[in-house]
Amino acid sequence: MNLSQFRKHYEPLIENEMSEMIQSLAVPKSLKEAMNYSLQAGGKRIRPILLLAVLEEFGVRHPDALKVAAAIEMIHTYSLIHDDLPSMDDDDLRRGMPTNHVVYGEALAILAGDALLTYSFGVIARLEHVPSDDKVRLIDLMSVSSGAEGMVGGQVLDIEGEEKKLTLEELEKVHRLKTGALLTYSILAGAILAQAADEEIVALSRFGEHLGLAFQIRDDILDVTGTSEELGKTAGKDESSEKSTYPSLLTLPKAKEKLEFHATEALQAISELNGELSLLRELTELIVQRKN
Amino acid sequence: MNLSQFRKHYEPLIENEMSEMIQSLAVPKSLKEAMNYSLQAGGKRIRPILLLAVLEEFGVRHPDALKVAAAIEMIHTYSLIHDDLPSMDDDDLRRGMPTNHVVYGEALAILAGDALLTYSFGVIARLEHVPSDDKVRLIDLMSVSSGAEGMVGGQVLDIEGEEKKLTLEELEKVHRLKTGALLTYSILAGAILAQAADEEIVALSRFGEHLGLAFQIRDDILDVTGTSEELGKTAGKDESSEKSTYPSLLTLPKAKEKLEFHATEALQAISELNGELSLLRELTELIVQRKN
Repeated sequence: MNLSQFRKHYEPLIENEMSEMIQSLAVPKSLKEAMNYSLQAGGKRIRPILLLAVLEEFGVRHPDALKVAAAIEMIHTYSLIHDDLPSMDDDDLRRGMPTNHVVYGEALAILAGDALLTYSFGVIARLEHVPSDDKVRLIDLMSVSSGAEGMVGGQVLDIEGEEKKLTLEELEKVHRLKTGALLTYSILAGAILAQAADEEIVALSRFGEHLGLAFQIRDDILDVTGTSEELGKTAGKDESSEKSTYPSLLTLPKAKEKLEFHATEALQAISELNGELSLLRELTELIVQRKN
Repeated sequence: MNLSQFRKHYEPLIENEMSEMIQSLAVPKSLKEAMNYSLQAGGKRIRPILLLAVLEEFGVRHPDALKVAAAIEMIHTYSLIHDDLPSMDDDDLRRGMPTNHVVYGEALAILAGDALLTYSFGVIARLEHVPSDDKVRLIDLMSVSSGAEGMVGGQVLDIEGEEKKLTLEELEKVHRLKTGALLTYSILAGAILAQAADEEIVALSRFGEHLGLAFQIRDDILDVTGTSEELGKTAGKDESSEKSTYPSLLTLPKAKEKLEFHATEALQAISELNGELSLLRELTELIVQRKN
């Protein structure tokens, strides 16, 4: 299966898994709707696909893989809901659709985010085919990569960075935390489910870090070169808000070089792993070339 | 040790534990401050004290007890930070101090709440003296009691209830979820750490449910009878906003009867447990009689 077939196969399964999870909850109707709305609002599902691709490369069909993939996508989705709030990035549009707070109001949007985050940890705790030691490891890493020392910390730095010109080092730190940490976690979670050896985990972790940076540099580049229609959100927003980005700090051609550098490093990191790794190679290519 | 001595002994230890946890984080300074501010803003520490009291009744000194107690207080604190936001209850004052968003702004307040919630799960995952099976159980229950089917769901119902007159049954459900679920969890977490037997857990669970209702009815009563100075927040807020409360649905004397009923049921639930249970009895008494 190539990446395109792989995604076509798994995306509906991921979305179905999330939908069934939310449907199974005994919760107020409005909350269920608000949680479900953002989960089903499309998106590239990069994180779940990364997890599933790692398992595929290890030749493992894990019965709980979709559940873990769904939990990670829920964390990603909660972060988008909160990031879009008026007091944060104040975005009305996400993937071409009204954002959660535009549809459900700020209070419910905040609570839907809180609920998705909280639920994700429970999903891992209740997996049926994963030993408790591995669940604990998954939860520990999930907490670190999505919390104050990871994604949430990155969002804080991102907001604070809007008010000043960042150095390239500072910008890279924002990206590592805000995007890289959860992307890397997706890869490591797949490796943990696949019972990967320590040296394989180290290699995949380096792969994830470079991939995360490549992903975010591509995001910065798209904000300059893409159209609002392609992106499903307002293009040129970084420039008009004078936000520090790779293109603004480095120039567009140098940013593209940096993107290539991290993509090459990502592939280098996994070059000694066994197997074809064609899915992970294609995913890296996709991230470098994506239009949205 | 009576309850007063017990609290005097443990409250600084709980606060110190939380402070050390936050200090140990490698996170942006502003985020660390915002997380710490609300954790150190006082409060009754009822949830951690309940957990520690259960362990004391079982005669267990658990080396990880303070960590679990701190994790629960962090979840409680995150919920207060988010509940106080302008788009939710819009409170400027909490325990006589400016609320988190008043000091740090809405964006950082939301993120500090997110970070505290996320961190709590990691604390449990990283406990050193708890078997993985028990950690998984603690995390599963923590997710359910604080999430969409527990505390967050209760907050949604509470907000939606402001726009209509609730039945007593509906009001009880709000209270069960919004306050009862995490209070009960505090008790069960103590029982799990104490390796309590299943029937003891069932008894403590019933104790927690009634105690949670008693706690919230007392809250409703205090809003009518207390002063803003005693409460550290605006008194009479429920009445002026025509919010459904036990006094408003039942009259004040009947609400007091209901409070007594649940306190009695709480004590009845644990009457067959071994030991003196003097701390749990005193805690029940405290909750019935508290002035803030």
